[in-house]
Amino acid sequence: MCNIEVMCIGSFGRYTRPKCNLILLIILQLGLHTVEGVWPLPQSFTSSTERYPLNPNAFYFGYGRQSAAQQDCSVLDAAFKRYFSLIFPDYTSGYGVLRFSGDKPFTVEIRVDHADCDSYPNENSSERYNLSVSAGQASLNAETVWGALRGLETFSQLVYQDDFGTYFVNKTEIDDFPRFQFRAILLDTSRHYLPVQAILKTLDAMAYSKFNVFHWHIVDDPSFPYQSRTFPDLSSKGAFHPMTHIYTQSDVRRVISHARLWGIRVLPEFDSPGHTQSWGKGQSDLLTPCYRGSTPSGTFGPVNPVLPSTYQFMARLFKEVSSVFPDSYIHLGGDEVDFSCWKSNPDVRAFMQKMGFGGDFTKLEAFYMEKIVNITSALNKTSIVWQDVFDYHERIPKDTVLHIWKGTPASYKEELSRMTKAGMRVLLAAPWYINHIAYGQDWRNYYTVQPLNFSGTEEQKKLVIGGEVCMWGEYVDATNLTPRLWPRASAAAERLWSDEKQTSSVDEAFPRLQDFRCKLVRRGIRAEPLHVGHCKHEYQGV
Amino acid sequence: MCNIEVMCIGSFGRYTRPKCNLILLIILQLGLHTVEGVWPLPQSFTSSTERYPLNPNAFYFGYGRQSAAQQDCSVLDAAFKRYFSLIFPDYTSGYGVLRFSGDKPFTVEIRVDHADCDSYPNENSSERYNLSVSAGQASLNAETVWGALRGLETFSQLVYQDDFGTYFVNKTEIDDFPRFQFRAILLDTSRHYLPVQAILKTLDAMAYSKFNVFHWHIVDDPSFPYQSRTFPDLSSKGAFHPMTHIYTQSDVRRVISHARLWGIRVLPEFDSPGHTQSWGKGQSDLLTPCYRGSTPSGTFGPVNPVLPSTYQFMARLFKEVSSVFPDSYIHLGGDEVDFSCWKSNPDVRAFMQKMGFGGDFTKLEAFYMEKIVNITSALNKTSIVWQDVFDYHERIPKDTVLHIWKGTPASYKEELSRMTKAGMRVLLAAPWYINHIAYGQDWRNYYTVQPLNFSGTEEQKKLVIGGEVCMWGEYVDATNLTPRLWPRASAAAERLWSDEKQTSSVDEAFPRLQDFRCKLVRRGIRAEPLHVGHCKHEYQGV
Repeated sequence: MCNIEVMCIGSFGRYTRPKCNLILLIILQLGLHTVEGVWPLPQSFTSSTERYPLNPNAFYFGYGRQSAAQQDCSVLDAAFKRYFSLIFPDYTSGYGVLRFSGDKPFTVEIRVDHADCDSYPNENSSERYNLSVSAGQASLNAETVWGALRGLETFSQLVYQDDFGTYFVNKTEIDDFPRFQFRAILLDTSRHYLPVQAILKTLDAMAYSKFNVFHWHIVDDPSFPYQSRTFPDLSSKGAFHPMTHIYTQSDVRRVISHARLWGIRVLPEFDSPGHTQSWGKGQSDLLTPCYRGSTPSGTFGPVNPVLPSTYQFMARLFKEVSSVFPDSYIHLGGDEVDFSCWKSNPDVRAFMQKMGFGGDFTKLEAFYMEKIVNITSALNKTSIVWQDVFDYHERIPKDTVLHIWKGTPASYKEELSRMTKAGMRVLLAAPWYINHIAYGQDWRNYYTVQPLNFSGTEEQKKLVIGGEVCMWGEYVDATNLTPRLWPRASAAAERLWSDEKQTSSVDEAFPRLQDFRCKLVRRGIRAEPLHVGHCKHEYQGV
Repeated sequence: MCNIEVMCIGSFGRYTRPKCNLILLIILQLGLHTVEGVWPLPQSFTSSTERYPLNPNAFYFGYGRQSAAQQDCSVLDAAFKRYFSLIFPDYTSGYGVLRFSGDKPFTVEIRVDHADCDSYPNENSSERYNLSVSAGQASLNAETVWGALRGLETFSQLVYQDDFGTYFVNKTEIDDFPRFQFRAILLDTSRHYLPVQAILKTLDAMAYSKFNVFHWHIVDDPSFPYQSRTFPDLSSKGAFHPMTHIYTQSDVRRVISHARLWGIRVLPEFDSPGHTQSWGKGQSDLLTPCYRGSTPSGTFGPVNPVLPSTYQFMARLFKEVSSVFPDSYIHLGGDEVDFSCWKSNPDVRAFMQKMGFGGDFTKLEAFYMEKIVNITSALNKTSIVWQDVFDYHERIPKDTVLHIWKGTPASYKEELSRMTKAGMRVLLAAPWYINHIAYGQDWRNYYTVQPLNFSGTEEQKKLVIGGEVCMWGEYVDATNLTPRLWPRASAAAERLWSDEKQTSSVDEAFPRLQDFRCKLVRRGIRAEPLHVGHCKHEYQGV
């Protein structure tokens, strides 16, 4: 019945379905409302048709007496302000203004076990919460402030307006926690520069879908926009423009701080030894000079792995990066290294011989990556590397996380099996290369991914720490980022958060995702439509 | 040499091409600038490296003494204001403010043969212009104000800023005219509602690419947003929402008026007898009741062609539409009629028998379309119909324009050949269904279309009056319209405006289109990137 209701709402006005519209009319006239509209779907969700009007003038967030966090908890105080505006989009005065009302007040009371208000979310942060909505109040309990943030998002999605603009919330009971600990979105700021505002707005939208890691693929071949304190030439010579197309230290702090307030970790990637053409512009002798015969050709290849100066440079760079980015994870790349330049270079060949690598350049690559992993390990960082590294590196430290990006559904399942069998933790990105576009409802492909549907033991499955939606930047910048990302990434978000069995039907997800997409549009996110239809509040910008 | 210059600028900072960058550096240091940056490419273009600084405080548009149009010419006066802002995007005071400057003035002097200032552009409007830029002045000559608008667009694209923000224009001589008379963009406001602002912004961007027809596919199965004076129920019952998702008479006037000021015709489409599900909601007895066996099934098919009331309704509707939309063309649709409902209906079958149509429902369809074409002919409108109509209608009036939308490159060429052989005028849309998206540089497909490369006589080729970029709305609304349309539609714009031989190389077009795309971004149009790279001024919105 519930599904039929939602389906009717979803297709209202699109297809002539007299029976459906009849049911819809009856529902509207009875003043009922389905409250299934939480995306991603909570693990446990019961609600009734009993509903409570909410008056913005008599609506409060508060800390429960037993809560470890109390007033002045930076994360929650900021969240209350944000969510007040998100819950009451029509209300102009804003939260915190002295308000008078004859209505009975409605209070959302938050209680958390740990007052982790000034910390950063990390890989062990609990995001579990319990939300209980009843007459006059909602109780939100969580172990951490990060769990409380997820609960606030859920609460905000429960509130709806009737045709006269009155806000309501139904009696609801929710127990919720994420299926996977690591739910990431990758943005690529090297192939195109993304203004800081575009990144911040993406962080907002990530939180609406309960993503919790921003993987910042900050530099690559085309440009080096990160302004390093230690090596300022990297951006002044390697960025698209040394002033307008860079991320200053202050920009980076702003991104990290904004992300923290949404409970989002910032995972920086400084990919090497390949994908480093832009690095060479500001750091001489870093890249390998390629040879044509016996003379340098004037072009450069991957990072030069044979010079001690390379590792001195990397140690200083990663020391800075480790202090700038508070997360305990760091992404080291390691993918797609082209050996042709290394092969052409006589110094590299001599080094190979000296080290006894023979003609096997994967050994040289492994040698290089091991040095880099050691540098970051010494800085107490856990390394993530692209899956390529596993293939050429036998001695990769066990706490390194492998990032699976290659292959078809059939082949990445094999990789999942193989890598977890070796006891390695893995992250799945391969099926969620969302920069790839196709005509029609390709979100269905992102939704139907089954990250644990590979052959392996229960222990192996536990090694899959999560997944990542990758928005590579070849064809994406601030002009088209948002509609390409949303709501297609939200499909992956539900796969990573929700119970697999409860979310097995893509057709049942469709009207729910349509509904959620309209919520995103209402919040000012240019989320593109899934199919023919409309939102009550269309996007009004141009 | 010129091409090499532009190529280098296009790829600056993207690929390491030391030689290219060296040339670029030399050019920059000499203070030279390539002035090939006009899109679509003018028919005849010569320029030199001699350049003139432009000071916004000493820059004027004026009417030449011999110009038929003089001050208070609505179209040109408005264009001067718009183009002043487009030419000097950094200048905050705006055009028309009293200005003092020590600099020598620069005047753009416009001379037109006809003072068609208060008319609408039509199918015979000349868009030819001549632009001559020399020290202290530019002379822009045109037969009509519409040609002058095209010349102003060209002039605005010639102006550039150096690294210090100074504006320049080079000595230039341009003779220009469009290859095809009809260069259209279709927007579909039925599958999704587009706010008026989104339509107006699209008109702006159309003018930047010299498109001159806005084909407004205003109603269709999913919704009927046009608010009819004669039949207000059509939108109050057939729109997605009767208040928020409609186009009022005032909205329509605003669109037509805005389009006129850019020299753009507005071609309305009221597609029938298929694609009319939404019409049936507000007009009972209009659609054919479908039968299951001997009883009505409750669903409806295409417009009912057997009732006299149908034609009375259509006559009144098209009388209104003809007066609301000033263009002499009207699009009547006629595509994709599903016969199954007609076949099921006993009244329709009886009518078929009475008329002697046998079992051939295309004859019924032809009967219907002929009636509709006669209605609009009597209103002095030229009809455009989708190509389907040609296939089933032998007696289609010779002045009807056929709109080719079906098929592969091979098959639409056959259609072009077949239909022009029958002496019919045609419009080509098939290769430009731009709502279809694919990963990568699909603009190349739009660019390499050769509309006249079909087997036929010179006379036949003359019957191809132009082409149209169609943005069907299944997956498009205001959230993603702009980056899907631009700059991909601009590729088609050059094919429709410019000389085919001069624009035969897609690789030479690439850096020029990249450059033009950055101009669009600078003008606030969210035109998506073509490939890795950057614009000096990135899109700053979120």
